[in-house]
Amino acid sequence: MRAHSSHPPITLLAGGVGAAKFLRGLVRCVDEARVTVIVNTGDDEEFHGLHVSPDIDTIVYTLAGLANPVHGWGLRGETFKVLAALEPFYGKPWFALGDRDLATHLYRTQRLREGFRLSEITADIARRLGVRARVRPMSDDAVRTFIKLRGKPQALPFQEYFVRGRARGAIESIELRGLATAQPLPAMLEAVAKSSAIILAPSNPFVSLGPILGLRGFRDALHAVKERVVAISPIVGGHTIKGPADKMLRGLGHEVSALGVARLYRDIVGAFVLDHADHRQVAAIEALGMRAIVTDTIMSTPVRAARLAQVVMRALAV
Amino acid sequence: MRAHSSHPPITLLAGGVGAAKFLRGLVRCVDEARVTVIVNTGDDEEFHGLHVSPDIDTIVYTLAGLANPVHGWGLRGETFKVLAALEPFYGKPWFALGDRDLATHLYRTQRLREGFRLSEITADIARRLGVRARVRPMSDDAVRTFIKLRGKPQALPFQEYFVRGRARGAIESIELRGLATAQPLPAMLEAVAKSSAIILAPSNPFVSLGPILGLRGFRDALHAVKERVVAISPIVGGHTIKGPADKMLRGLGHEVSALGVARLYRDIVGAFVLDHADHRQVAAIEALGMRAIVTDTIMSTPVRAARLAQVVMRALAV
Repeated sequence: MRAHSSHPPITLLAGGVGAAKFLRGLVRCVDEARVTVIVNTGDDEEFHGLHVSPDIDTIVYTLAGLANPVHGWGLRGETFKVLAALEPFYGKPWFALGDRDLATHLYRTQRLREGFRLSEITADIARRLGVRARVRPMSDDAVRTFIKLRGKPQALPFQEYFVRGRARGAIESIELRGLATAQPLPAMLEAVAKSSAIILAPSNPFVSLGPILGLRGFRDALHAVKERVVAISPIVGGHTIKGPADKMLRGLGHEVSALGVARLYRDIVGAFVLDHADHRQVAAIEALGMRAIVTDTIMSTPVRAARLAQVVMRALAV
Repeated sequence: MRAHSSHPPITLLAGGVGAAKFLRGLVRCVDEARVTVIVNTGDDEEFHGLHVSPDIDTIVYTLAGLANPVHGWGLRGETFKVLAALEPFYGKPWFALGDRDLATHLYRTQRLREGFRLSEITADIARRLGVRARVRPMSDDAVRTFIKLRGKPQALPFQEYFVRGRARGAIESIELRGLATAQPLPAMLEAVAKSSAIILAPSNPFVSLGPILGLRGFRDALHAVKERVVAISPIVGGHTIKGPADKMLRGLGHEVSALGVARLYRDIVGAFVLDHADHRQVAAIEALGMRAIVTDTIMSTPVRAARLAQVVMRALAV
């Protein structure tokens, strides 16, 4: 692994918006160059022939200081001229493709067609946008998340469920197509092995971290360094701040609580960060064989995100 | 050929801006639905993985009433947000890809990748933008125009010569790559055979009409109906209004005059329209076996373009 800094590396497993919020806090506490972000690509989708990697872009735009601070996704001051002009061809759009964002998709798509790997292209895009952290897709192989809703005959591609369908409906099952044959990036397994801290962002455990953790050898790699792995609960007071993690826990038969999430990570994390609101779950979580750390996990401002990051880093004595 | 109207069809052979100017006048005189436009695709280029057909788009946007009235190319009220955002990836742009224009390129490119033919896609785009004329590429096969400049080792793709290089340098030769094997659209040869008027727009005879006329069987098809074919000189007073036709005539050893152009069309046109400024060339042009029609050919306004179109139509007693 390339040494970005004399300090030991830190690895974050990330989905999109929740992970980006945490990352914004993390890079206020530690040198961005120490950070490796392994990003979910299960949500990737092709729109109008363009390869869109929503989670990667959210992470990259956030680190580049270009992210829209209101939505958490997309770009600051974004316009939607192309999207409007696509209407005569594709009808009313349901996925917000901004003009500046489109430039990223155009470049990524052309590079993929030229034969470059998604990991190379992601590194290149991040570098060109001034990002100093190492941002990589979880794999160069396609994994695609599909959501099967109760009472619907067919599973939907994630973006159709999440954006078009506004995450409505009762989850019956989640399919991660391509996962069985997808390879994690070797450099990312190496990053996990060498990091002084490996952080599971407060992202959706099924559709954001699930694809990463499901990659061949990934859970084993985390298990081997379990004492240096910390997860942040995406569930606070029985609900998610954003997104359908709570509905997914329920639909798939898990307890909708921090404890419910901690159980999913019992073999791979040494410490679990949960919100004050859930302090009653500490004993049950510790009974799983992990340290429970209670703090304020609501990242309503970058300062609060930084405070959370500090608690996380202190938990591992990094 | 599908009957768009009870009146006999009219076919225009077109490049980009000059042809569009004339077309704007023509559709003021005749029902647009009577008009078939056969458009040059030798200038087509791939930008950032997108298939751009500049001449087709200029014609379609003009007929759709979307064209930029100042430049003659591109769209009215166009913005360039994506182009600006592409800079970190591709550096300073030299080809103006507008945001609305990009939507067309995205749609065309995706359709091509899906296996549709350029002619089908062009018809579809024109229809979706409200165009009633039949606009078609000259061929579904790729023909690419390259310009060899004196003193340069390599021929340049047309857009690199024309836009990036601003049409500077002395022309040594023009290569129309792919032309020998490209097939004209059968429906377009049929349109030529059945039209009461076939008009060669005042476009560049080498790089705009040259590719069309060079398609297998195309000159023969025109020769067979020569009495119904009329050409409009792109040269007025020894110069072109726009573009490098004059430099190309010179570079390739032709006389830089209306007569020089008429000579290129001697086997295929029955009438030749030239400007008052060039009235002294009438006898020499008629000696080529075509009627010479002297009028005002400068289309500085749509009304003037319509007057020119009327003269052209009257010349053929359509």
